[in-house]
Amino acid sequence: MKMSFSHLISQCSLLWLLLFLLAIVNAVPKSEEYKTYIIHMDHTHKPTSFLTHKSWHRSILKSLLSSPADDDKELLLYSYSHVMHGFSARLTPSQLAEIEESPAHLATFPGSTGKLMTTYSPKFLGLQQNFGIWPAASYGEDVIVGIIDSGIWPERESFNDEGMSPVPQRWKGECENGTAFSPSYCNRKLIGARSFSKGIRAKGHDISKGEEFDSARDFVGHGSHTASTAVGNYVPGVSHFGYARGTAVGVAPRAHLAVYKVGWLKGQVEAPDVLAGMEKAILDGVDIMSLSLNFHGQLPYFADVIARGSLSAVEKGIFVVCSAGNNYEFATVGNAAPWIATVGAGTLDRSFHATMTLGNGVPIEGTSYFPESVFITDIPLYHAKGNLSKAICNDKALDIKDVSGKVVLCDYSTNITTSQQIMEVQRAGAFAAIFLTDASFSLFAEEYSIPSLILPTASGTLVKEYVTKVRNPKVKDMRFVLTRYGTKPAPQVANYSSKGPSPVSPGVLKPDILAPGDDVVAAVAPTRPYIQVGKYNLSSDYQLMSGTSMATPHVAGVGALLKSIHPEWSPAAIRSAIMTTAYAEDNTGTVFKSQLLDLESASPLEFGAGHINPNKAMDPGLIYDMGLQDYIEFLCGLGYTKKEMSVILGQTQWSCSNKSIHDLNYPSFMAVLPTETRYPVTMKFSRVVTNVGNNKAVYRAYLENIPTGLR
Amino acid sequence: MKMSFSHLISQCSLLWLLLFLLAIVNAVPKSEEYKTYIIHMDHTHKPTSFLTHKSWHRSILKSLLSSPADDDKELLLYSYSHVMHGFSARLTPSQLAEIEESPAHLATFPGSTGKLMTTYSPKFLGLQQNFGIWPAASYGEDVIVGIIDSGIWPERESFNDEGMSPVPQRWKGECENGTAFSPSYCNRKLIGARSFSKGIRAKGHDISKGEEFDSARDFVGHGSHTASTAVGNYVPGVSHFGYARGTAVGVAPRAHLAVYKVGWLKGQVEAPDVLAGMEKAILDGVDIMSLSLNFHGQLPYFADVIARGSLSAVEKGIFVVCSAGNNYEFATVGNAAPWIATVGAGTLDRSFHATMTLGNGVPIEGTSYFPESVFITDIPLYHAKGNLSKAICNDKALDIKDVSGKVVLCDYSTNITTSQQIMEVQRAGAFAAIFLTDASFSLFAEEYSIPSLILPTASGTLVKEYVTKVRNPKVKDMRFVLTRYGTKPAPQVANYSSKGPSPVSPGVLKPDILAPGDDVVAAVAPTRPYIQVGKYNLSSDYQLMSGTSMATPHVAGVGALLKSIHPEWSPAAIRSAIMTTAYAEDNTGTVFKSQLLDLESASPLEFGAGHINPNKAMDPGLIYDMGLQDYIEFLCGLGYTKKEMSVILGQTQWSCSNKSIHDLNYPSFMAVLPTETRYPVTMKFSRVVTNVGNNKAVYRAYLENIPTGLR
Repeated sequence: MKMSFSHLISQCSLLWLLLFLLAIVNAVPKSEEYKTYIIHMDHTHKPTSFLTHKSWHRSILKSLLSSPADDDKELLLYSYSHVMHGFSARLTPSQLAEIEESPAHLATFPGSTGKLMTTYSPKFLGLQQNFGIWPAASYGEDVIVGIIDSGIWPERESFNDEGMSPVPQRWKGECENGTAFSPSYCNRKLIGARSFSKGIRAKGHDISKGEEFDSARDFVGHGSHTASTAVGNYVPGVSHFGYARGTAVGVAPRAHLAVYKVGWLKGQVEAPDVLAGMEKAILDGVDIMSLSLNFHGQLPYFADVIARGSLSAVEKGIFVVCSAGNNYEFATVGNAAPWIATVGAGTLDRSFHATMTLGNGVPIEGTSYFPESVFITDIPLYHAKGNLSKAICNDKALDIKDVSGKVVLCDYSTNITTSQQIMEVQRAGAFAAIFLTDASFSLFAEEYSIPSLILPTASGTLVKEYVTKVRNPKVKDMRFVLTRYGTKPAPQVANYSSKGPSPVSPGVLKPDILAPGDDVVAAVAPTRPYIQVGKYNLSSDYQLMSGTSMATPHVAGVGALLKSIHPEWSPAAIRSAIMTTAYAEDNTGTVFKSQLLDLESASPLEFGAGHINPNKAMDPGLIYDMGLQDYIEFLCGLGYTKKEMSVILGQTQWSCSNKSIHDLNYPSFMAVLPTETRYPVTMKFSRVVTNVGNNKAVYRAYLENIPTGLR
Repeated sequence: MKMSFSHLISQCSLLWLLLFLLAIVNAVPKSEEYKTYIIHMDHTHKPTSFLTHKSWHRSILKSLLSSPADDDKELLLYSYSHVMHGFSARLTPSQLAEIEESPAHLATFPGSTGKLMTTYSPKFLGLQQNFGIWPAASYGEDVIVGIIDSGIWPERESFNDEGMSPVPQRWKGECENGTAFSPSYCNRKLIGARSFSKGIRAKGHDISKGEEFDSARDFVGHGSHTASTAVGNYVPGVSHFGYARGTAVGVAPRAHLAVYKVGWLKGQVEAPDVLAGMEKAILDGVDIMSLSLNFHGQLPYFADVIARGSLSAVEKGIFVVCSAGNNYEFATVGNAAPWIATVGAGTLDRSFHATMTLGNGVPIEGTSYFPESVFITDIPLYHAKGNLSKAICNDKALDIKDVSGKVVLCDYSTNITTSQQIMEVQRAGAFAAIFLTDASFSLFAEEYSIPSLILPTASGTLVKEYVTKVRNPKVKDMRFVLTRYGTKPAPQVANYSSKGPSPVSPGVLKPDILAPGDDVVAAVAPTRPYIQVGKYNLSSDYQLMSGTSMATPHVAGVGALLKSIHPEWSPAAIRSAIMTTAYAEDNTGTVFKSQLLDLESASPLEFGAGHINPNKAMDPGLIYDMGLQDYIEFLCGLGYTKKEMSVILGQTQWSCSNKSIHDLNYPSFMAVLPTETRYPVTMKFSRVVTNVGNNKAVYRAYLENIPTGLR
């Protein structure tokens, strides 16, 4: 079944994107300092005398040493043969130069540093007991999800194995022994846990004490959060300091979890470690790989460790899901290779509130994340009328004599942020605060250091009128820790969610899909406090986190469910099912709004195919399937050199038929046109769809109006 | 089947109890002030011209008024015809005298004032899904439990009606309309809600504003707590500020709830209101009546409104459960009439902790109820060595310069309580505290105003050694909100649980039964904060409460389960089943320990028949049954006058066969002997047991050694 679409593109100005595609600079170190490199080798050059790649790599490094007494182990970080052929090592510039002279040398890349980017969301996704994809997929039973992240806090209830089926026989992974971690932590849920730290150590960081665990144990909490979001078991009564209370459960609660710790020291990630983690995951036999991490910048695929590692994984049938990044702006989307499912962050229809009753009996409700259920009654309300500096709670404008024991009202001003206002109100010793603001974003949950609520200036008018007219204005009561559902419009495209297009993949619309990423509650590590209130730091076992990092494991979980129902589906088929069944209308019946654009309509450059819809994804009817050869054709179409091709493919032989990159059999369509294009323009996209639905179905192609406002 | 037991009583000295039995004083007011009285009338004197008792009572009161224009409504509070015959009214001494001259007048009692005395406990009781009494009783389906208490907060999740069967057709109750309450709050769970406030109003209290709701809505939270403990629906993820987290569920989660609010203004209870509530409950058709309230003093039954009202209820087949009271001492047990199930409070095997690591790495765990999950790291540890006043944190002994930002260690001293110490530590501005104590009781949960933990002096030695030997002692970390299960020994008899014997009922061992009453987590009203930490008050939807008030609804719930399985059982049969299947050995295999007696062995005067054991209670084999005539014989045996008899019985005709009160067919045995008794003494007890088990069973009577240490 072959179909061909012609799309009339009305408006576009994406030429500038192509500028990003140009130079990759391999910076040469100035002195003889050791630095970390990832070296691609042409494995066909491996002498047959070496039984393993590793022994070959070692001998190469050994030959670099001036004295045989020197230990090559200090040079070699990891030897890779699945995510790529080659190794990572600490090398001086001259050692590197020596290696690069070898005919087996393919390419060198610096060991780049990346960063790591909870549980009403399954319900928001429509996942239900005994209905739809959950029972159809047996809740993900027998599927193995690999989480490449900051490790795991295994004692969290989300990782108990109640109701789990035994570890699949094909599983080859293991649980490591390390600092505060032992194989006994593994169970039917957590079936593997390994850490990869040679890269971070090579950077001179000490992970053996203090702010880290030298093991798969999670220090920062990020990995526990993403793992519990993807495959966490049922945990009733979870909350973020009382907010968002409910049963925490992952998207695929019966899937097995394999943990690969590559994130260290507050989220730092080194490329050699990520590659090593991905390699181990491939070897172990994961079905799904979830990476909530992004490297700085947008590198061409041959220079991008995640792109390279994930192509190997996809080749082995592993569905790879990655975060789009949290860079707010357009053209910042990362992890955008066409074999990766690239995930943007949407909001839930849930919001957090405080209520207040004014002295005149008028009830007010505003946004608040204040983490204690404080009980406030009959407190004077303070507003510095006429004194602008005080009225907007300017830095050092408030006087403790004025505000002590009072609720302070801070006016909206574009000269000062709510973050600065709350710091001033707290500094001055106020009892509580009300902030008026029209900014689309005001405070992070961690910033609510005193009891406070945020009101849009429109509803703040009521408060200002009251405080102005009454002699001794007061707040009759304030109550916190209130959670509301059904917030509209939802989902929205989160402010920070990295937007397309990707300069690296013209013709491929990225991100692919939107998933819940904003204010997700999931498990964290108990190693760090969440917020300081008064003189005490507070912590919680389950916490809110926001980011494309949180959206990614949702898609990994859906991938696990689909894999359970359709074990024969390729990674491309799984992504196609997810994308073609996505929706793009929010709960007001209109196209998603963009937080970055002050709630104007968002475009596919922000939400890709739309928001994930798991129950529909299990029966997509038609899929756009792809295999390695499709990606090879696409890479050829990008004009990569032979060397670049062999680096990204990890093989020296391939064939291309000079297809247009527009003809990559992708479930979405995108054209990049020069700015001086005269409209209308005709572009041709070829696609092959495969029927995975009812055998007797008849499909008819028709054209819906494409979204307006492409940017 | 008739059996006779002879018990050899080794030691006893209860004669002094009889002293309590003497005078009831009807205090005569000195002036012409209005006071509230409860007037018992001989209803056989009601002229047939009056169709209702109420119209008769009204005409009596009307006749007292000097001018017909005066409104008799101001005098009459309630007219009663089920809990008793008579009425309550506001009367001057001369009006009272006039009524008392009537031949229909039986007795007058002052309108006395009483007071009101969560959810691991069902599990502790052995209640399980799909095993034992829960499924056998269909979780209490179709049984109606009436809670006579401070009303209800209907929005609490415990009162949702998910999974509830329809309201029974026999139900005659209703939901009232009142302040912040409407009939729409009722559902299949909450099937009735009424408030009774004429008594409290007559005392001159205004319940229409401020600290009360003039409706069945609960202000103090006590009624919501007891109601959710008895019949609360499943609520996952409930906790007391993070402690005791779990699913809250009542003992009979499918039983219906009828609420009768008689507790007002921080727990004040007026006798006329209690009688009115009980009367309404009887009329409405409740199956179980639970009263977690006690009046001051121990009145003879004819003067005790609860005894009086509950005899009417029992006569109608209603199982009445009452709290023993929280008076700590022996011979203080209340609600001890032999037709009432009188409940003492036991502890659970659950405890609340904080952990700490000293600077030298030594881990310490102590008791703590501090309500915030504060995260404390690397704080100096302060101990005033050598200065006794400072070392024991004496009042005003500490200096902010010494303790600010530090963890203060307070030594044990019998000169100062932990309550006083924590106040001093907080006053001086310390960061956190450690208290050493050997007292059996140290702090209430509400007293943990700063992060602190309590250690027995034995384990405190480690801390003192460390603080003495090290130059700059510090606490490496402190963590709070830790719950432990399996605490030993458990259950214990709670310190405060009122103990027997009852001076009013010699020969009847009271309390009857022990049930979980200590640190029970259940629903409360959101009207009051729980604790102040720093400058903020904190509240929680579900909270810890302790008392025989909390034990009582557990027994009411078990009664509901038994009623569901054995609808034909009399109230005496239900209690017998509960008592004869109770256990008296704790989880160390020895007899329960008494907190009041510094964990020496407790006696049946503290725990009655033992601790309730619901799964066994459903199949007791034999029961000691009783009906109204048994209680009449018992009352005759107490030597009550004819008038007193007609007051308590509410009837003028009865017959007695001059049985010994020892022959009341009670499931427990007790003898009161004069101090000068020469031992050994032989006493004879007659009992009739009824086989409610397998028809073909053979029972053989045998004598176990009775517990030693009777007091």
